[in-house]
Amino acid sequence: MLNDLELPVMLSARDGEFLVRPAVEHDLDALIELIANDPISAARGDTADPADRAAYARGLAEVQADPRNVQLVAERDGAVIGTLQLTVLPGISRQGASRVQVEAVRVRDDLRSSGIGRAFLRWVAEDAAPSLGASLIQLTSDASRTGAHRFYERLGYAASHVGYKLSV
Amino acid sequence: MLNDLELPVMLSARDGEFLVRPAVEHDLDALIELIANDPISAARGDTADPADRAAYARGLAEVQADPRNVQLVAERDGAVIGTLQLTVLPGISRQGASRVQVEAVRVRDDLRSSGIGRAFLRWVAEDAAPSLGASLIQLTSDASRTGAHRFYERLGYAASHVGYKLSV
Repeated sequence: MLNDLELPVMLSARDGEFLVRPAVEHDLDALIELIANDPISAARGDTADPADRAAYARGLAEVQADPRNVQLVAERDGAVIGTLQLTVLPGISRQGASRVQVEAVRVRDDLRSSGIGRAFLRWVAEDAAPSLGASLIQLTSDASRTGAHRFYERLGYAASHVGYKLSV
Repeated sequence: MLNDLELPVMLSARDGEFLVRPAVEHDLDALIELIANDPISAARGDTADPADRAAYARGLAEVQADPRNVQLVAERDGAVIGTLQLTVLPGISRQGASRVQVEAVRVRDDLRSSGIGRAFLRWVAEDAAPSLGASLIQLTSDASRTGAHRFYERLGYAASHVGYKLSV
């Protein structure tokens, strides 16, 4: 399924090119750091605590082992500068449409507003989703991320839904 | 994965019991009808047009074939009276947490407000998610479904996110 994506692929942002490829085990610490550097994630417990490393490794390994999931990294000069997860969701509603769900979108904080996220998400919409046979892309964004909301709306996303979460 | 659920299970609503089990191919027409009877779905093209039956069948077959997805039906007196889809999402954020995502929640319109949806969703939170090793349940609800929003909020869901969709 996600093997259908032609990767790696080189994308262009305003400040230069970057490579998109599936994450490998060796990327784990860079991914943990990207997530922990986000204050909303840190407030949820993603503090890059070494005691949590095995749990992150297990999460990445489960994503890697599943044909409907892929964790992608954006790489430049050998460094991981961004990430996002894609999941292909089958379903019956919307005439049996497959959806691509995007989770865990992060760009390294010193590289924000340089068009990396925009190029990454445009590739998801223009290349990845069509090649996966998906007619809908969906994601949720924390209600407090007003900058991210403007970003997604400029990319054409409609804020048509309320995103609910329940911790169990 | 979804085989870990102990199904079928009998649940109790205010108006009586109902059975929860995985959907089978024979349920397809009842599922199509449940979705088409929802005006928001109908406005998106889910009109139970016989020309779309093969697409719905393909969607259901893909869900059935995937170990991280299950389409559940609520059954009473041999009739399908409700449905929802569960997907187990692996991931790295939230310390590598697995999530259960709920899609396509429907209860037959003449049986609304009888506690069927409430019992179904409580089972997801109290039985299904823990037995799947998930610490978070997530779903999105169309912004216009204000009755559904009250329903999820009474069940403890937090409207913490904005749900974005992009048709491609």
